[in-house]
Amino acid sequence: MITARAVDGLPEIELGFDLAAAVVDRLASGPEPAALEPGDVLVVAHKAISKLEGRTRRLSDVEPTERARALALEHGRDPRHVQVVLDESATLIRAQRGVLIAETRHGFVCANAGVDASNAFEEGTLVLLPLDPDASARVLRARLATLTGVRPGIVITDSFGRAWRSGQCDVAIGVAGLRPLEDWRGRRDGHGRELRATIVAIADELAAAADLVRRKDSQQPVVLIRGSGRHVTAEDGPGVAPLIRARQHDLFR
Amino acid sequence: MITARAVDGLPEIELGFDLAAAVVDRLASGPEPAALEPGDVLVVAHKAISKLEGRTRRLSDVEPTERARALALEHGRDPRHVQVVLDESATLIRAQRGVLIAETRHGFVCANAGVDASNAFEEGTLVLLPLDPDASARVLRARLATLTGVRPGIVITDSFGRAWRSGQCDVAIGVAGLRPLEDWRGRRDGHGRELRATIVAIADELAAAADLVRRKDSQQPVVLIRGSGRHVTAEDGPGVAPLIRARQHDLFR
Repeated sequence: MITARAVDGLPEIELGFDLAAAVVDRLASGPEPAALEPGDVLVVAHKAISKLEGRTRRLSDVEPTERARALALEHGRDPRHVQVVLDESATLIRAQRGVLIAETRHGFVCANAGVDASNAFEEGTLVLLPLDPDASARVLRARLATLTGVRPGIVITDSFGRAWRSGQCDVAIGVAGLRPLEDWRGRRDGHGRELRATIVAIADELAAAADLVRRKDSQQPVVLIRGSGRHVTAEDGPGVAPLIRARQHDLFR
Repeated sequence: MITARAVDGLPEIELGFDLAAAVVDRLASGPEPAALEPGDVLVVAHKAISKLEGRTRRLSDVEPTERARALALEHGRDPRHVQVVLDESATLIRAQRGVLIAETRHGFVCANAGVDASNAFEEGTLVLLPLDPDASARVLRARLATLTGVRPGIVITDSFGRAWRSGQCDVAIGVAGLRPLEDWRGRRDGHGRELRATIVAIADELAAAADLVRRKDSQQPVVLIRGSGRHVTAEDGPGVAPLIRARQHDLFR
């Protein structure tokens, strides 16, 4: 059995905000008071992290290059927004029908290199992905450990579209204290036969589960998942890297 | 808050098995007895459905064609297995380094057109996707309604790999009584700004959440999710179709 509950009542998140303290406080003061327990996982929408880390850009500060202007013209986009997408991109994978699919500097392939205008501080401000989401996850984890003595697994998420399927699912972009993949290869299935190609993207499934309890029109960046403790580790571990498919194994670039 | 729990103690599933009756029975007889409630969602791994519908093939019955033999030789695969993959495919999207990515007759893009050897009845038997997973979901739903008076949302799942990301996530391949997408476009975010590109793949996120409580080495094809009732509908609805990206909007074929 797993349970997922949103942490309600978090305030507007500003630069330098102590998210760990706020989460501990809000968990303790809701209608059903709770405290972190060993094995818990906190799933955090990256926008909260980006805001407290100051990973935002004002459109009015952006001077678009020739390339950004050309792409913007071709795709009916704001050239300053396109410039920020290019700034955040390592490679542009597809540019078609107004959609820019880019590989970010972290290695994520997603629309607009993760640059987003919704839920920003204010009109005309873009929210970027954290510079190092694994480091952000480790910092949050350490602060929670200081405050509570418990080191939960941390998953930082974004909403990604998918090739071939409509709609977005939340996926992990930063991880600490959690094995992001569970590898069943070499183990036996229910009939004693060896499982051949089963590696479960646990961190992405936790991200998806958390998104189910979050309403997009509310301030609920943090979700507590209980019952997935077998994936939580004492060490901070490898972060999100195991979830990024190596370029040489990728058939869709 | 949502909860997800596996339905324990289901027997080996055979042709014609009454899965609905078994689920109702197992829910009632576990250590924490439960009954279906309005708003519940049952997430079912497709292999259980495929087995009770007889959607399996014995390798020994398969006569591979020239094309299957050539692909098998090139990719180090069993030619009979490749033949079954081709039989289940509408189009082969990629064939590279032993991996066959196909579009199934239903329109799903996945490895091996969903043809799988693990958790089959017996060695040498392949399990195919259900012929019409939405119809399978509707049949299960109707039978549950007859038995209990409750019409839960039904999601039938498979484990799909993803472009660009390692590991598999469970996704929906059949749906009944559930809105598979939640469209937030035109609604307002936490700051009153219009949400532009937010369509959440609810059925896929439910599939992923369910997979978290299932161990691959156990017989737990069915997971009960409670707390997602706002997506459950009285009508059986459009099935999985809204989750399949229209070919003309797909940048990765």
